[in-house]
Amino acid sequence: MKKVILDLDTGIDDAMALAYILGSPEVQLAGVTGTYGNVSLRQGLRNSLALLDLLGHPEVPVFAGQPHALLACEDYETSGVSAFIHGPNGIGGVELPDSPRSPKAEPAVDFLIRMANECGPDLIYVPTGPLTNLACALRRDPDACHKIGRVVLMGGALTVCGNVTPAAEANISKDPEAADQVFRSGLATTMVGLDVTLQTLLTPGDVDEWHHLGTGAATAYASIVDYYIWAYAQRQPYLGGCGLHDPLAAAVALDPSLVTTVGINLQVDLEGELRGRTIGDLARLNDPRKSTQVALGVDIPRFMQNLMSRVGRALGGGR
Amino acid sequence: MKKVILDLDTGIDDAMALAYILGSPEVQLAGVTGTYGNVSLRQGLRNSLALLDLLGHPEVPVFAGQPHALLACEDYETSGVSAFIHGPNGIGGVELPDSPRSPKAEPAVDFLIRMANECGPDLIYVPTGPLTNLACALRRDPDACHKIGRVVLMGGALTVCGNVTPAAEANISKDPEAADQVFRSGLATTMVGLDVTLQTLLTPGDVDEWHHLGTGAATAYASIVDYYIWAYAQRQPYLGGCGLHDPLAAAVALDPSLVTTVGINLQVDLEGELRGRTIGDLARLNDPRKSTQVALGVDIPRFMQNLMSRVGRALGGGR
Repeated sequence: MKKVILDLDTGIDDAMALAYILGSPEVQLAGVTGTYGNVSLRQGLRNSLALLDLLGHPEVPVFAGQPHALLACEDYETSGVSAFIHGPNGIGGVELPDSPRSPKAEPAVDFLIRMANECGPDLIYVPTGPLTNLACALRRDPDACHKIGRVVLMGGALTVCGNVTPAAEANISKDPEAADQVFRSGLATTMVGLDVTLQTLLTPGDVDEWHHLGTGAATAYASIVDYYIWAYAQRQPYLGGCGLHDPLAAAVALDPSLVTTVGINLQVDLEGELRGRTIGDLARLNDPRKSTQVALGVDIPRFMQNLMSRVGRALGGGR
Repeated sequence: MKKVILDLDTGIDDAMALAYILGSPEVQLAGVTGTYGNVSLRQGLRNSLALLDLLGHPEVPVFAGQPHALLACEDYETSGVSAFIHGPNGIGGVELPDSPRSPKAEPAVDFLIRMANECGPDLIYVPTGPLTNLACALRRDPDACHKIGRVVLMGGALTVCGNVTPAAEANISKDPEAADQVFRSGLATTMVGLDVTLQTLLTPGDVDEWHHLGTGAATAYASIVDYYIWAYAQRQPYLGGCGLHDPLAAAVALDPSLVTTVGINLQVDLEGELRGRTIGDLARLNDPRKSTQVALGVDIPRFMQNLMSRVGRALGGGR
């Protein structure tokens, strides 16, 4: 059975990605590694543990990753925009009990490298925040990273504007150097960016059915996601819903046929107003090997059906 | 028989596009409209007339278009970078005799609208410079413009950096407002931008065979293109040749199957460091109608074969 590692900065769409994977019987969630972004590393780890308990999966281990960008000196703290979109606690202000568990002593980067060596092609790695942990793993043990079966990341914006600046998407913008190192490393990756995630929208009507599932998990998730939809309506009302960023990456990680992709060797701009932009690397334009598959099209009905059934399954089985 | 209008800012790759169309027996070149960009409008008109004479096609009429960008007040004069890439006279410093002919009295925009109404789906329009003339035609008579069978433009950069700034490609950057109006108009267009034109490179060896064709046209073109390859080697040596921007647009205009495209509703950034960037319009991301097909892949061997045979045919038949 394929094993999945989710690398989460556990805000609201991360919570949906978590439920998506737990509601997918064909894979096993081997662990959650923590990053920062939607929330601080500390808050994200806390949320991941609490959500795993809520969903009835206290057996899934959680590992602490890097607390800040490669070039930063201080731990990342939640910024104003993220606090607005995900709520100050990252899960829409919904109060969940703290888990009695703690993150494992093994650092996230060590866990990733260990799992890459143990599982090789059977390992699926899904980073949904900044790529700091993956960049660190690539520096430490590139051979191990190249053994990973599939790396599907949520981040970037190739054919549409960014969402934190006109050039930069949030995850890439929080550690452009890490993302640039990952893309230039030649590691085979699939980029699930705003190009496709803003095509997959969840609307208030979609969430209604979770309110009726009757479990504590379903009720909590419905409230959490209601907040996210509300926040999107304030900031990007023309979209008509909230972008399903991280759950789409999780879905593509299990079933790449959900998206159509174009092979492009990417780089990340590091300077000026363009800092954080994902863009083709001219120096590798004519290299026939394309290390990144960029998702540009998505089978929206099939993804939405998967999302509702899989997240529904996870929420129905939770406590 | 399909009719083609080439809208040229006649520098070196425009000269190649002109030969490509004249060497394509399945279409008739109905006229050349003049724009500015690689050179001034005045210099471009002069070059178009001289090249048509050189290639043995003095019957093709030439029309003067707009001399500057929509928001500019003064006629465009050749800039330093263009003068370097195309030579101060736009054709690599090669001296051709002035044509005894002059541009027609009918303005380019009037000619385009008239031909759109007369030929409708049989008209192929290929702008290879700023989109000022097309934007003016769209303002004046949108219904006529929507009758045009195919609009294939050279310009823009969606998945790679620009070539005048990290965000902007040269043609779009010279009149971002015009390009933005064209893309937002809903007019069906195919964008042949740096994404594909920098994949199609001409190298010194390719040009050698023209030197041996023995006609004046072939000798002149070989010298002109040799200059272009030299200029590229100075500025972008890592490419290994010169980009076949305008001839690729001409080729795609005749045979769209040469490229693979993705349908995207584009806009052009108008402000700050991003001015001139072609990027997806978020407000139309989820509109199922896609007005622009953006070329991302190109059948390089087939295009190069077409280029050498068609340009070769035009050069062999010239004086």
